[in-house]
This record gives sequence, structure tokens and C-alpha cells, in this order.
Amino acid sequence: MSKKDGFYPDWLNKEAAPKGSYREIFKWGSPTEFKVPKRSLYEIMKKMFQMTDDDFKEPKEIGYEKVDFDMPIKLTEKQIASLKEIVGEKNVRTDPYARLSVAYGKTMHDLMRLRKKIIENIPDAVLYPESKEQIEKIVKYITEEKIPLYVYGGGSSVTRGVECMKGGISLDMRLNFNKVIKFNEINQTITVEAGMSGPDLEKHLNNAVEEFGAKMKYTCGHFPQSFEYSSVGGWTVTRGAGQNSTYYGKIEDIVLGQEYATPIGNISTDDYPRKATGPDINHIMMGSEGTFGVLTHVTLRFFKYTADNRVKYSYIFKNWADAQAAAREIMQGEFGMPSVFRVSDPEETELMLRLYGVDEIPFVNPFLKKLGYKSFNIEDSMKGKESDGKCMFLGWSEGEKHFAKNQARQIRKICRSYKAMPLGSIPVDGWEKGRFKDPYLRDSMQDFGIMTDTLECTVNWDNMQHVYETVRAYCKSRPNTVCTTHMSHAYPQGANLYFIFIAKMTELDDYLSYHRGILDHIQQSGAAISHHHGVGKMFAPWLEGFIGTKEIGIFKTLKDYFDKDYLMNPGGTIGLDLKEEEKVFKRPKH
Amino acid sequence: MSKKDGFYPDWLNKEAAPKGSYREIFKWGSPTEFKVPKRSLYEIMKKMFQMTDDDFKEPKEIGYEKVDFDMPIKLTEKQIASLKEIVGEKNVRTDPYARLSVAYGKTMHDLMRLRKKIIENIPDAVLYPESKEQIEKIVKYITEEKIPLYVYGGGSSVTRGVECMKGGISLDMRLNFNKVIKFNEINQTITVEAGMSGPDLEKHLNNAVEEFGAKMKYTCGHFPQSFEYSSVGGWTVTRGAGQNSTYYGKIEDIVLGQEYATPIGNISTDDYPRKATGPDINHIMMGSEGTFGVLTHVTLRFFKYTADNRVKYSYIFKNWADAQAAAREIMQGEFGMPSVFRVSDPEETELMLRLYGVDEIPFVNPFLKKLGYKSFNIEDSMKGKESDGKCMFLGWSEGEKHFAKNQARQIRKICRSYKAMPLGSIPVDGWEKGRFKDPYLRDSMQDFGIMTDTLECTVNWDNMQHVYETVRAYCKSRPNTVCTTHMSHAYPQGANLYFIFIAKMTELDDYLSYHRGILDHIQQSGAAISHHHGVGKMFAPWLEGFIGTKEIGIFKTLKDYFDKDYLMNPGGTIGLDLKEEEKVFKRPKH
Repeated sequence: MSKKDGFYPDWLNKEAAPKGSYREIFKWGSPTEFKVPKRSLYEIMKKMFQMTDDDFKEPKEIGYEKVDFDMPIKLTEKQIASLKEIVGEKNVRTDPYARLSVAYGKTMHDLMRLRKKIIENIPDAVLYPESKEQIEKIVKYITEEKIPLYVYGGGSSVTRGVECMKGGISLDMRLNFNKVIKFNEINQTITVEAGMSGPDLEKHLNNAVEEFGAKMKYTCGHFPQSFEYSSVGGWTVTRGAGQNSTYYGKIEDIVLGQEYATPIGNISTDDYPRKATGPDINHIMMGSEGTFGVLTHVTLRFFKYTADNRVKYSYIFKNWADAQAAAREIMQGEFGMPSVFRVSDPEETELMLRLYGVDEIPFVNPFLKKLGYKSFNIEDSMKGKESDGKCMFLGWSEGEKHFAKNQARQIRKICRSYKAMPLGSIPVDGWEKGRFKDPYLRDSMQDFGIMTDTLECTVNWDNMQHVYETVRAYCKSRPNTVCTTHMSHAYPQGANLYFIFIAKMTELDDYLSYHRGILDHIQQSGAAISHHHGVGKMFAPWLEGFIGTKEIGIFKTLKDYFDKDYLMNPGGTIGLDLKEEEKVFKRPKH
Repeated sequence: MSKKDGFYPDWLNKEAAPKGSYREIFKWGSPTEFKVPKRSLYEIMKKMFQMTDDDFKEPKEIGYEKVDFDMPIKLTEKQIASLKEIVGEKNVRTDPYARLSVAYGKTMHDLMRLRKKIIENIPDAVLYPESKEQIEKIVKYITEEKIPLYVYGGGSSVTRGVECMKGGISLDMRLNFNKVIKFNEINQTITVEAGMSGPDLEKHLNNAVEEFGAKMKYTCGHFPQSFEYSSVGGWTVTRGAGQNSTYYGKIEDIVLGQEYATPIGNISTDDYPRKATGPDINHIMMGSEGTFGVLTHVTLRFFKYTADNRVKYSYIFKNWADAQAAAREIMQGEFGMPSVFRVSDPEETELMLRLYGVDEIPFVNPFLKKLGYKSFNIEDSMKGKESDGKCMFLGWSEGEKHFAKNQARQIRKICRSYKAMPLGSIPVDGWEKGRFKDPYLRDSMQDFGIMTDTLECTVNWDNMQHVYETVRAYCKSRPNTVCTTHMSHAYPQGANLYFIFIAKMTELDDYLSYHRGILDHIQQSGAAISHHHGVGKMFAPWLEGFIGTKEIGIFKTLKDYFDKDYLMNPGGTIGLDLKEEEKVFKRPKH
């Protein structure tokens, strides 16, 4: 760093965190991968959050200490011995590091607790099962012994979905439960163990020719931002969505068959594409988030690998109203669905243009100015003043070559009718490069007290602007807070609105109260409280107000059938065992 | 009729059946619409079924008699008075005709009973509710009084779904419960009362510009063969499918929101396109077939009307194996889904070519012969000899113009790779013209003792040939029986197989034993026992063997939650109140 450039923080991006440390647990992803704000972003950040170079001199709560705590194990020695008999000696751990490593997910609530060494709700033992049969035995055993059971898939939950509120055991699925059970090229289906990670699944399908003697290369079509550290089981039980879901569908459109080990025995669904034989058990089990049983085997559709046919495009709209209207027109256009479909509001657009190098295309800014396109004034907005501005839409089409080309052509027609300016593929490439990397940036910023978190919801088109304004107004009522929004995962009837909020914030209570406020406003404004993150324990208080009391009674009835002793992911998950006073009824349905 | 042409039956196609007669109830559709076999088909029929002109001289069991029977009404006068208070004097009927008119659906079991005047399982009173509020009051009242309740939508059930096994009351939804509640052009959704008929819904959407001031014309996208006499509510609770479902989806892909009046009160779902807030209540209620409550309001997606962009095509394949392989390739082609997609086996093809005028295209037959395409020998087949032969595929693409064109082009490429011969749009036009009219033909043929019925099932691609062979072998084990099969409602993972069986058969026991045998073979061969007809009371004995004992326990648990006194569509529907000895366990799942 030359003096002329001024101070630039000494980010913790040089080496992996110490072995056995807290940071190893809370840091996102690969131990040796990092992402830090570039100098220009650092300069903006200081202005945005009213921080000075001094704030960036000493990283805080970095968790380099070795995990060490004293929390008694409530399982008896006999119980532990029995569990070892089921999964083998090496597949049971009771040391503090193993216990803490599966206790939390990746919401800011989790990260703050780990940075502050707040140790609560941890399992007594962690098991690493190797097969469906072992899991069935475990569930049978814990049912007899009345031991609470939790499941840890990829660990990327942002709803406290994996947290072991009642102690007991947690099944860490990552290590041993990730094999392909069946590859069926004729039906284009693959059956895998639920602990399989996203990249592993995609690798098997990409390499199907070599691995299974298939005729061609395939893709799973499901790429959430957490892709690299998420699991097929986690996708399924939470009803997740990938960034390409507009074409490939949400996980519930991709999963065809499931098998669960439940306290009353095995529950399995078949894998017919559709049928008319009563209520759909697949849709009863998906969304149960581990409260009915442990998902063991999953059968998923897969797709021809058509990435070579991709057509990428991006457009700048004059304002958010135009961008929303065009998005709806595209979704209702009857020319098939684009794969990536992402429309950013003015605040996000302003940051994205800087992040993805669009600023560096020389002709863009003067041209946009000439067209009367305004920039979003971030500094004004940080002071609470609302600011209009241009909006970026980026996407790509894939599938059969001419299908993709025609789609891109129809989208161009619609964008042009709104006088949107085409920016080509550069911003898309920029976004694609970073699509799985943003969580690394979050850790680097939090080392200096900057909190980043997200909430998302489904809205119908006719209510989108209202939800957007309501939630955003609340977010921005806190000064010096970034709140960017984009629309993704779109449908003919609506879309997902995704809010990212960034602020200088280090206290857990501050975070929780802000997070609650946002969820309140999401619920009150008439959006679905989650499109793909799920409910877990964190959103559960809002669920009954959202779906209705008699409707949540359906979940409780099912719970009583599968797990009358409340041993499966207990402690509030999907609102099943919440006390009345824990519920939020801001928008009671009935 | 000239003498030279020989005898030709005197079909009952001149006038409507007498007012108040049995025939009025069992005859399909409009009282003054008829369809009779043309002379050439009549000649073939005689050969196929080994019948003579004599068999066609006197129509039998034609049901011209006035409905008249004496079945005591079990409701008290006080109860009837209370029901009249809810829906109004004029909307309660207890006369024999009204009671019988909603007792049966349209499976052959129903038609034979009505022709033979077998009166069983009829309601004590028929109500014609006018609003959701009235239905809610009815459900509340019958719950207090423990009166069984049934619902009659369009009456086209082929599963004994509407049959009033326990007497009580039946709600006939056709008369008064068919209004539009809300038209939302922005979200492309419409909310209607559940008794609305298919044509009414389509008319509202086609006329949206005039009726709702909409910007354009829309379509519902859902056209089952029973379209003209089916209801939105019936589609929804049975998980029906339309003939264009390959593009528009099954009803569960179209319905977004539902409201039910249940014994525990109202249950309603929202209408977000997707969400992640626990198990999907829409999918719990769809398929419940009236056993959890009465469906009142339904919110459905609708679609741009793109019929003007239709591209129609048909091809003849050398054999069934080629046709299946090409169908799968099309479904997995990633160029969007065709709207109509129908592939007929050799036996059906042979009949269709005659029915749809393809025989009259002069060059076709010689050309096919030159290519080595065999004809299916129906006469041999009727004697039980299996026969290979050419297969017809017909379909159309719609949606945005270039999307549809490209799809047709890709389909042509695939068909050509199998050396299929293109036949253009003539057979498609022929099929389209008759698509809702075949049930009329069924009545005409039954007047002379010829029974026509259908069964259908979902198969995955890798099991299609096995299911086809197994079911067909059983069907053809009965001599002189037509069994035609087509594949429709296709998906990347499989398709619906639809079996039509036609035979000289007038005895109820013969029919029931044959029908059971076919269902046995569907279940044993590994197909889903229904793709879109539902389960009702007729398929219920096979359900537990198909989905599993613990899985059917899920349905029972839900039933106990909604309707612990078993008042809603009781008597076996979806297997909820079957005795052990009534169940068929041919292929027990666990």
C-alpha cells in the first residue's frame, strides 16, 4: 500500500483460521478462500456507515480462540455406547468442537453468537451416519429412549433450522452420507443420500458419461447462493430455490421422491411425475424441516446440460416501476422461462454497477444521463432520504439453442418497449463470477463491525410495490443502513423479493430487534414470510399469523402422527412447539 | 338408407329423452346432441364384437321410463326445514328425480345401474347453495346434526366420487354456485365459485376484454374430455388434468388458492406462486375429494389466449417402440412443452385413421406400405392374437408465436430421426373436432349392448412398455374386446397411459370383474393407479396397496382433524373408511 492511497484495512485474508477455533466454525466456506472489499468500495463504506479509518484498524471478535467450553452431556454412557453400536465408534463424537460445529447455521444471529462465544443449544453428541439403514436404527433408538434428534446438512440455514434447542443428538450428514444410490438416464432421475452437497451432485451429473456410461452430460439445475455448502436434504426439507429456479423450478418442482426415517417407521413417496391418488405426500414432507422425520434418500429430476446454449443479457431501466412492469410482462410472455432472472432496485443497482465493472464501460454513464436516467444517491439515502434511480435487470436463457435465442429476443423486445438500455453480458459475467462468493465478503466486513444479512419473501405482482415500500421504509428508518432489494425467482403470478441489509451493528439485541422489525413488516404488508429460506425456529413466531390457526393445526396433526413425543427437531421449528406468548400475530389471517 | 347399403341401426338420435326419465340422467351432455357410429364403423363393429344386424334392431335398457322409486327419506322434517332456512325453500329438493340425478357419476358402473334402474346410495335431499356463506352454514349444521354430506360438481366422475353411500344430503353446485368472485389481470388469476363449469370459466376468460375491461383475451388452459360437463371444483379436488396439460400443467399446477368449509371451520390457502412456509396446504387439500370439507372458492392462474399461434402436427411412426422413444426425446428436449401431445398405440391408430379421415388422404397408405409400415390387424387382435403396427402421434404447440414454431421444428427433427412420416394437421383437426364428443358415441353404442370405458395411470418412461404389455395382455385375454391405448399428459420423467376398452357387455358383474382385473394389473405392473381421474370409491380398495399403509395413515390423520365424525363424502372415498377385507393388496408397498 502506498502512502498516497491512504489507509486500507489489514483484512484477515492471509491464512486459514487456527485449527479448532471458533472462526473455523463460523467462517463461510473454504478455510483458505476470502473476499474483501476493494479499495473503492472501502472508501464508499466509510461514508455510508459513517466510519473512519480508525474503525478498520483492529478486527474484532474474530474467533481465533480454540473452542472450549464445559457443557455437561446429558446422554448416559449406555446411550452413547448404543449409538456407537449403530454407526460405529469413529462416527460418534462428543468433544466440544464437534458439538459446537453443528449447533448453529449461518444467519447473523448465529455468527454473532459464535463470535461472542455464546454457547447455547448444543447437542450432546454428534453422529456421522453412513447409510439409510443406520439412520433408521438411530431414529428407532432415540424414539425408544426419548432423545431429541437434529440434522445438520450443509449448515447454511439462515432460520436457525439446525439448532439443537433441546440438546440430544445431531446427525452431521456431510461426512459419510453422500453417495449416489441410483442414476436413471431413461427417466432423467437420480437418487442420492440426503447429505450430498450441491457441488457433488452437479459433478456426478456433469460427469455422467464417464461415471455412469450415460449418453450425455447433465445438470441438477439447482444453484442457491449457498450452493457450495448446502446439501440436497437441506434443499428439500426447507423448500429451497436455486438462482436458476425461474427455468428449472424450485426444489419442490425438482424432487420426485423422498424417503424418511420417522418415529413411526419409514415413509416413502414414489417418483411419478404427477398422479391423482389423494393429497400429495411429497408436498406434506417437503417443508417439514426435519420435524416429521429424517430425510434419507431423495430422487431428483435432472436436466440436459445446456450451458453452451446460454444467452446472457442485461438492461438498465429508467426506474423501478418500469423494471417491475417489464419483469411481469416477460414472466407472462408464454415463451418459456429464463434461467437467471434478477432485477435490482436503484440502491442495489448503484452498488452492482460498481461491483461488476459496468462503471468501467466508458460510454454507459454519459449515455444514461443523456436519456434522463438518474443515479441513486446512496449518501442521501443513508441519511434516510428516499432516492429514485435506474434499475438493472440481468439474466440468461438456456435450454435448446433456438428456444434460448428466441426467449432472449422476446425479452429484448419487451425491454426496448420500456426504453431500457441493453448492456450486454458484462454485468452478467460479473455477477456469475461472484455468485457463490458474497458470503466470504460478509465475514471480512463483520471483522470490522459491519453486519450483513438478508430476508426474502414471495409477493404477487399486484402487491409488489407495497411490500417493497413498506419493508424498505422500515429498513431505512434506521440511519446509515444499506438496504438493497432485488427480484429473483419469478413467476407469471409474482416473484421473490430479496432484501439485503448492511449496517454497522455488533450487538445481538440490536440485530434481533431489527430482524424482527423487518419480518413484522414483511408479514404485515401481505407477503409470504419466506419464499425459499424456510421457517426454522427464527421465523416460526410469524407462521401462525401468516397461514392461519386452523391451518397450522394441520401441521400439528401431522406432527402428532409422525412424532408424538416431539423428538424430531424440537424447540419451535415451523411453529410446532411454540408457546402462545412466543407467537407474533401482526397480521392474523382469520 | 338404400337397400344396397344393407341394414343400419335406428339410433336413438332423433330427439331428447322424455322429461324426468332415467335416460335424462345417464345420457351424456346436451339432451339434443348425439353421436352415432358412421356406417363404415358400424360394419367394423359387427365384425369386432361378433355381432349381427339382429343385435342392432332393438335398443335395450334405454331408460325412457320416468324416474320413480320409493326410498324413505331419513332426514327429519325439522332438519329439512332448517336446511331450507339456510338455502331458501326453492333450493331444497327431495323428489326422486332430483335425488337420483346427483347420486351417480359417469363410469360404466353408474350407467349400467341407471339403465337397469338399480337405485342405491342416493341422498335424502339435494341442496342448491348460492354462496360460500350458505355452504359454510350447511357444513356447520350437518356437523351438529351428524348428517352425511356429498358434493355434486359436474357429475362426470368415473370413480364413484360423488356417490352418496350413506344417504344424507348432496350439494348440487351446478345451478347457483358458479359466479366469478375476482378477476385479477395483473397477477393473471381468477377466483370463482367451485361449481363453475369449464365452458363458463373459459367464456369469462375469452371475453375478459368486454366483461372485465381487460387488455386482452385469456384462456384457462384446462380442457379435460369431460370439459363441457365438468366443474372447477371437481377438477381441483380430484387433481384432474386437461388434454392440453403437457403445456398448461395439471390442475394442481394451475390452482393457486382454495377455500374449504370443513367441520372444524374454514380452511383457506393463499395464492403465492411458491413459498417455503412448511408443508403445502394446497397440496393437502387437492386430492382430498371432498373428504376434508367442501371446496367453495378456487383461485386459478390463467394464460394469454394464444390459440392463434397454434402449430398443429401429426406423424406416423413405424411401431410403438419408436413412438415411445421419440415421445421421451421430445419431452426431454428442453424446448418447452407442446400443448396437445397424444401418441396412440397400433390398435388405437388403426381406429383413429378411420375415424379422423386420414384414410381418405390418397397417398398415405401406399406410401406407408412402401416404407414397410404395417397395419394393425384388428380382427386378429380381437381373437387374442397380438399384432404390431404403425402408431400415430398428434399434437400442437402454442404460446408465443416463435416459441411455438421452434417447438414444432424441434419435434419434426426428432420425428424425422425415427423416420416417422408427417401427416400434417388433418388428423389433429379431426381429433379436435371430436375431442369433447366421444362420450355421446358411448351412449349410442350402449343402447345395443356395447360397453365402452376407460382407465388411466401414470408410468415412468423406463416402465412404460411393461405396464403397457401387462395391462393390454389382461384386457385382450377377454376375446372380442377392443383395447386401445394412448399416451397423453407427458412429462420429462414419464407420461399418462390411457386405456379404452370396448366390448359387448351388458351385465354389471361382468363389467365389475373386468374393471377390477384391469386395475389389478395396473397396480401390479408398477403404474400409479390414477393420473387424473382420482380415486373416489371405486379405486379406493387399491390405494393402500399402492401408496403404503403408513402413508395412508397420513390421510386418516388429516381426516380425523377435519372431520372426526366421517360426515364428508363418507363410504370409502380415497380409502378412508374401508374395511380391511375391502382392500386390495396386490402390490403391497411395504
